[in-house]
Amino acid sequence: MPEDMARPLIRDRGEAGGSRHLEASMSDAPVVGIVGTGDFSRSLARRLVSSGYQVVVGSRNPKRSAALFPEEAEVTSQMEAAGQADLVFVAVFPEHHSTLLELKPSLAGKTLVDVSNSLRINPDGPSNAEQLADLFPESDVVKGFNTISAWALQRGPRDGSRQIFLCSNSSKAKSSVMQLCRRLGFIPVDMGLLSSSLEIENLPLYLFPSWRTPILCTLFLFIFFYLYNFLRDVLQPYVTARKSVFYKMPIEMVNVTLPSVALVMLALVYLPGLCAAFLQLWSGTKYNRFPGWLDRWLSSRKQFGLCSFLCAAMHAIYSLSLPMRKSARFKLLLAVKQMKEGDEVWVNEEVWRMELYVSAGIMALGLLSLLAVTSLPSVANSVNWREFSFIQSTVGYCALSMATVHTLLYGWGRAFDPAQYRFMMPPTFALVLVLPSVALLGRLALFMPCVARRLAQIRRGSEKSRHIRFRLPDDDCRNGLEDVSNV
Amino acid sequence: MPEDMARPLIRDRGEAGGSRHLEASMSDAPVVGIVGTGDFSRSLARRLVSSGYQVVVGSRNPKRSAALFPEEAEVTSQMEAAGQADLVFVAVFPEHHSTLLELKPSLAGKTLVDVSNSLRINPDGPSNAEQLADLFPESDVVKGFNTISAWALQRGPRDGSRQIFLCSNSSKAKSSVMQLCRRLGFIPVDMGLLSSSLEIENLPLYLFPSWRTPILCTLFLFIFFYLYNFLRDVLQPYVTARKSVFYKMPIEMVNVTLPSVALVMLALVYLPGLCAAFLQLWSGTKYNRFPGWLDRWLSSRKQFGLCSFLCAAMHAIYSLSLPMRKSARFKLLLAVKQMKEGDEVWVNEEVWRMELYVSAGIMALGLLSLLAVTSLPSVANSVNWREFSFIQSTVGYCALSMATVHTLLYGWGRAFDPAQYRFMMPPTFALVLVLPSVALLGRLALFMPCVARRLAQIRRGSEKSRHIRFRLPDDDCRNGLEDVSNV
Amino acid sequence: MPEDMARPLIRDRGEAGGSRHLEASMSDAPVVGIVGTGDFSRSLARRLVSSGYQVVVGSRNPKRSAALFPEEAEVTSQMEAAGQADLVFVAVFPEHHSTLLELKPSLAGKTLVDVSNSLRINPDGPSNAEQLADLFPESDVVKGFNTISAWALQRGPRDGSRQIFLCSNSSKAKSSVMQLCRRLGFIPVDMGLLSSSLEIENLPLYLFPSWRTPILCTLFLFIFFYLYNFLRDVLQPYVTARKSVFYKMPIEMVNVTLPSVALVMLALVYLPGLCAAFLQLWSGTKYNRFPGWLDRWLSSRKQFGLCSFLCAAMHAIYSLSLPMRKSARFKLLLAVKQMKEGDEVWVNEEVWRMELYVSAGIMALGLLSLLAVTSLPSVANSVNWREFSFIQSTVGYCALSMATVHTLLYGWGRAFDPAQYRFMMPPTFALVLVLPSVALLGRLALFMPCVARRLAQIRRGSEKSRHIRFRLPDDDCRNGLEDVSNV
Repeated sequence: MPEDMARPLIRDRGEAGGSRHLEASMSDAPVVGIVGTGDFSRSLARRLVSSGYQVVVGSRNPKRSAALFPEEAEVTSQMEAAGQADLVFVAVFPEHHSTLLELKPSLAGKTLVDVSNSLRINPDGPSNAEQLADLFPESDVVKGFNTISAWALQRGPRDGSRQIFLCSNSSKAKSSVMQLCRRLGFIPVDMGLLSSSLEIENLPLYLFPSWRTPILCTLFLFIFFYLYNFLRDVLQPYVTARKSVFYKMPIEMVNVTLPSVALVMLALVYLPGLCAAFLQLWSGTKYNRFPGWLDRWLSSRKQFGLCSFLCAAMHAIYSLSLPMRKSARFKLLLAVKQMKEGDEVWVNEEVWRMELYVSAGIMALGLLSLLAVTSLPSVANSVNWREFSFIQSTVGYCALSMATVHTLLYGWGRAFDPAQYRFMMPPTFALVLVLPSVALLGRLALFMPCVARRLAQIRRGSEKSRHIRFRLPDDDCRNGLEDVSNV
Repeated sequence: MPEDMARPLIRDRGEAGGSRHLEASMSDAPVVGIVGTGDFSRSLARRLVSSGYQVVVGSRNPKRSAALFPEEAEVTSQMEAAGQADLVFVAVFPEHHSTLLELKPSLAGKTLVDVSNSLRINPDGPSNAEQLADLFPESDVVKGFNTISAWALQRGPRDGSRQIFLCSNSSKAKSSVMQLCRRLGFIPVDMGLLSSSLEIENLPLYLFPSWRTPILCTLFLFIFFYLYNFLRDVLQPYVTARKSVFYKMPIEMVNVTLPSVALVMLALVYLPGLCAAFLQLWSGTKYNRFPGWLDRWLSSRKQFGLCSFLCAAMHAIYSLSLPMRKSARFKLLLAVKQMKEGDEVWVNEEVWRMELYVSAGIMALGLLSLLAVTSLPSVANSVNWREFSFIQSTVGYCALSMATVHTLLYGWGRAFDPAQYRFMMPPTFALVLVLPSVALLGRLALFMPCVARRLAQIRRGSEKSRHIRFRLPDDDCRNGLEDVSNV
Repeated sequence: MPEDMARPLIRDRGEAGGSRHLEASMSDAPVVGIVGTGDFSRSLARRLVSSGYQVVVGSRNPKRSAALFPEEAEVTSQMEAAGQADLVFVAVFPEHHSTLLELKPSLAGKTLVDVSNSLRINPDGPSNAEQLADLFPESDVVKGFNTISAWALQRGPRDGSRQIFLCSNSSKAKSSVMQLCRRLGFIPVDMGLLSSSLEIENLPLYLFPSWRTPILCTLFLFIFFYLYNFLRDVLQPYVTARKSVFYKMPIEMVNVTLPSVALVMLALVYLPGLCAAFLQLWSGTKYNRFPGWLDRWLSSRKQFGLCSFLCAAMHAIYSLSLPMRKSARFKLLLAVKQMKEGDEVWVNEEVWRMELYVSAGIMALGLLSLLAVTSLPSVANSVNWREFSFIQSTVGYCALSMATVHTLLYGWGRAFDPAQYRFMMPPTFALVLVLPSVALLGRLALFMPCVARRLAQIRRGSEKSRHIRFRLPDDDCRNGLEDVSNV
């Protein structure tokens, strides 16, 4: 590139010495162009310069823009920038892409990196990058860098997410951009052909898509159980006996509602795996695709589990706060006042019941905490499948069983007390126990030797009628992550 | 590769345009072969195709298998697949490796990637990959991808562990597979020569090997202290006075046992570092290897610490749940009933003792939480050694001291009360304090100027008799992580 | 490299076979030299050997040193090691760098990797690496590996931080070291020219620099509020009525102080964003740099938030421990004793107040926990900006509001009780509420349509007088991370 030799050495402005290294650096670090002078452009220029690249910025108004860029970067006209560099970042509004058409001859055969984002999720396409590729059919368009903030670029790759998602129809162009990413300290992730650009552009616009259903489910269950408890525990005493216990609404009723939600949500973590297993047993093969709802349910089990854990943890804090409330103190004083001389104050059965259900509850919470910690990305990455599935399946079922025992012990005897059936409504805990019982019984059914053997056969690849010669040795082990172990 | 040009362009099936990019892609993305048609094979094919590779799948029954693969992949006979590709994934059962011998001539000089797993840990070898290398001595065998699940391959590299462990005797073959890994979005980790393949094959089969000893230790201590407390606090009153306090078993006794386990385990975190320091002082050099048990103990300190934290956290929850139990309420009512008019109810010493030991306990738990959070992989990665060793050593010793103070304050006066020595057994807290006291006194001994100076000399590389000229400048700093700072 | 062929094959010592692979390995894996025989040198040699490199160690005393190195590494004189390798690690004390001057001719044109650390932070330079570059002007000096411990090198890259920060004036030398890093399983991070070496050398010496101000701030607030509460709640009753409540010092007073600190710290998280927004409104442009103090404050919001969370969590534990203390029990017994027959024990207002403020407090803590969890590096990396800013801004302001409501409900009525103004000092909660109220009112002001529109304009790049043609489409979205969303 002889024109590079003619340009002043970028680093030479401030310092006189060190030319040996600079020549070396100049000869192998390609010149990188940036068209556009916004915030992102500036942060990118700064980062490229500090990683040893030569940067040429193309501006409509080079004189005014120069002050905004690091002095090592050359700020010039768009045409000149497009001419000098083999790799050009397009950092202008996508609606202004067409204003770049005059650069078409200079950009032919070069790599264009489209860093633009949309303002809202674009479900159908075409993506900005595809539109750019249509405008410049003779250039190689690479989509990328849009998931990285100007701020992350400037602070360097030590903070925040270091992944850059890239796609392009040209492997060569993609490779050179991947190498540039690595030199800037980021981790390039190849997302394939340019048709993935729509997904990449939508990535930074999503707002917890995988959490929507679990959170809605939690909210619905919360409202349902809260209203149910309100009818039974607050309205019924008021209507039938004019007893006002509305003060229970902020804490006590929330504290009955939260564990109900937590237990049902926990059962919902394990039900889809059971559904999948029974579907496979029924169809006799593992090669049928699951219905869409089951697929989505299976893939949002982690979110269901974390919602369950959040409710359980809040329930623990609410429970622990019960004795410090004024109402607890006042009730105790009332009890003292009404206590007669001969009264027996110690009821052994009540003591045992409470000791046992509190104990079971704490253990269930402890097990759930383990599950929650291992679902942190960095912890999940440091365990292998077998460990992950042991935690998520074995420890998870232990937590579910323990939580069920906690609820059963809490209900001890009350289930058969007609006074509990106010307004003809069964006590909450009876309602709550339905799904966990189904999950636990389903799991027990899969443990029966005949069922377990048949399921293992199916998951090793056997089908009803045909014999398959070539299976992968670790088929069942690999799938463990998906269905066997997480059932 | 002229035969590639003859084949139909894989991407051309669906779309007519874009040939420019496809040619470019074809010329630099090598053709990848896969032998075998299991789940893993399919997921791999899908991932390769979406990263722009040309995929040729070798099947015994190409017609039947074709439907299972993405249409961009070519499904053909094993012989043809082996012939077309330079890099072939072997995705068949290891016990069927020998059925591939007929492909030997086609595979000569090519790279074979063995992705197989064993069903159980193979301690002695030879590994599947080594057996494959013996069968195909003219091919370059690379072991890898066995730690990645079919599911992770399909969902792309954004979820789960992105590391792929590779090993091979051929650097060239390994390099090309590493490059492929990077293009698929994974992070290749070079594990050296093919002799590491056994370790790589065993990797996904381990079940928390580093946690075995710490967990067994926790369980043993729990059972020991639980039985000890049972004898002292439940059996002794029953035997000597027919006083039945069996209701204490689920909560109160667990709550006395847990902190005992937590404190002893915390002391066990700091004892091995002290042992190492005193061994170095005794031998006068840091170049002697530690005995095996000490090495293993040193490397499982994190696990010991986390077990200790778990017990401490459970102890906190159990303690906080004490006042909400029916038994606490009944005991209070009993106390009220037995209260005489003139009784002095406020015992200042008991108040102060409890305020202080609860306070010390909460602070110890707070410090332990800091230790636990910084041992999360992602947090540990974001701090440097000096910060890590400050947390793990300085904050850790503060937590140990605070927990010891908590226990001492709890024991306040009781240690000298003969009534506490039931069945001639000293109170639990006295037993528990032995190891923490040893650890704290040992650490104090190392703080003595003469000892500290000698140890610093040894750790800077000096030995008893010889003068070493060349030491690494940051020797002591680096080793800080291992022994100095974590003592 | 004909002299390599003359040397015995390094791997041939133990085993006779496998020469085919070894030749292949030898021909493409370059020989790596290490000068120096300290701990780091040994760990590095072991790691290089196990990744398939040929290692030549240069020692002053090769015979004595040989025993310390893996047998696959060749231990020879420094001169010979420098001669054989193209890439030489300099692992000697920086103060002994000058003793290597005799190797100057052998090292000319080669790559030297300086792995040294300083013993204390060197604020001004020149760095060790720059001094080495001055001594060997004909070699290419790369700074790196100093942030990796000997221990991390030995255990392999699966544990701890895998990033290696590199810098050099020679891109070619840096590239070859980056490739070596990758083959060892580390992630190289390009930090630019050798002038960054000072920063890289200082990296492992920092002790939580970003935490200093937030922690000092927390400590100052803690001491201030503790003393304030001590004067009001302990000293005043003692001085005025000789009532000794010193027993409150370890728990109750800490428990009043902690939430005060937590709330003020949480307000301090949101105030700098508001300052930034009002500064931008006032100056009419976003292109003015913020003053230094505001920049620093903005970048330490995460630390402020985590300190606030720690205080809030400790406050929760302290609060939950209140009823289990002996003092609570004694106070209750006293209340029972003093209770007259006709007394009304149930005060509805007090019950409601406490139910509500406990409830608000638990919810505030739950929201703060979400904030804390999402600030874990691995969780923060797995969400996109929009999600991150939703959590940090929307959820954060909810937490601040809820905590303010918690404090207001706690103060319910007390603010107007003259008895609360002891020593003429307003109650603590009134003091505490100042900053949160300012933050919440400021945020509300920014919600006013006219202000919000103006701010959005400014952040899209508009300035008072000029029209800017080229803006990046996602400017405001990107900056959201910095100011809009986190306001």
